[in-house]
Amino acid sequence: MTRSIPKKFEEITISTQPVFQGKIISLQVDTVKLPGGGEATREIVKHPGAVAVLALTPEDKILMVEQYRKPLERSQVEIPAGKLDAGEDPLAAAQRELQEETGYRCGKIRLLSSFYTSPGFADEIIHLYAAEELIPGTAQPDEDEFLNVEELTFDEAQEYIRDGRISDAKTIMAVYAWQIYRLTGSLPE
Amino acid sequence: MTRSIPKKFEEITISTQPVFQGKIISLQVDTVKLPGGGEATREIVKHPGAVAVLALTPEDKILMVEQYRKPLERSQVEIPAGKLDAGEDPLAAAQRELQEETGYRCGKIRLLSSFYTSPGFADEIIHLYAAEELIPGTAQPDEDEFLNVEELTFDEAQEYIRDGRISDAKTIMAVYAWQIYRLTGSLPE
Repeated sequence: MTRSIPKKFEEITISTQPVFQGKIISLQVDTVKLPGGGEATREIVKHPGAVAVLALTPEDKILMVEQYRKPLERSQVEIPAGKLDAGEDPLAAAQRELQEETGYRCGKIRLLSSFYTSPGFADEIIHLYAAEELIPGTAQPDEDEFLNVEELTFDEAQEYIRDGRISDAKTIMAVYAWQIYRLTGSLPE
Repeated sequence: MTRSIPKKFEEITISTQPVFQGKIISLQVDTVKLPGGGEATREIVKHPGAVAVLALTPEDKILMVEQYRKPLERSQVEIPAGKLDAGEDPLAAAQRELQEETGYRCGKIRLLSSFYTSPGFADEIIHLYAAEELIPGTAQPDEDEFLNVEELTFDEAQEYIRDGRISDAKTIMAVYAWQIYRLTGSLPE
């Protein structure tokens, strides 16, 4: 994201009302002046940002983590991911989360894409990395983190998407990227 | 998502504290009992759900909409999308948003994928549709909606991702799906 920030249709902030400051997210309501001159309110969730890792083993399997997602009241199978600590470099965070959640270290890692998850109401950005040259080790989840590591073939990952065990944006994106890699020999730019 | 809901590592709700009820989102903090017996809090944003549309014109261009995204303080180029109205059928919502935002109607439309955008803190789900047999018309944006419609070739869409004009999950997913379609003749399942 190197381009200068486009301001077309800019909504000028008239006032900001802080509503909530939590451990992970905060919430504010902004009153804005619309391009047409009217006013509107915008409900905005602030998030510290996160990293996620597309990690393929030497056996051509993708590393996944199953964990409970309280907002959905169900377990989800997702690629390894986690929030950025304050001031943390995203690449270092990606290596940290991969090792904590799956035990694997990686010889090579590079940024695949950075994307906003819900630009209508939240500023959360996820930095998605591709990790290679994986070296197995012992997972070290946080004290209150309960999870299962799974290694899926491409066909299994597609099956998980079809039956809903995988159903979040970053993981489906990673599986699409993997499919493009299998078809073209390179990950999408 | 036809599979029975997996409850592994379930976090049992001890109490729910409502924090905010807005026009679009609401926020609550749940205190939960962890699988290991400890307690934790979960900050949860509730969202009505949304639809998005991958729409390819007969000239093999993808329809995009540029609009200001207050949480990011910048304009974004995204596929046509919008929130579900109360009780609205997602497919009808997809046809409605496509027509309101771009003017196009479609002869055929089908569900490509339903996915959660931020399962760690929000229950937002996006139903992504693929629309075909597009028929041009006049856009009818909401009164407080300011947007530009763009039609991008595949190479232009990739360039927009590289330079950050496109940088949200659903739109990057749609471009990946389009790439898979171009390579294999069918959209990902």
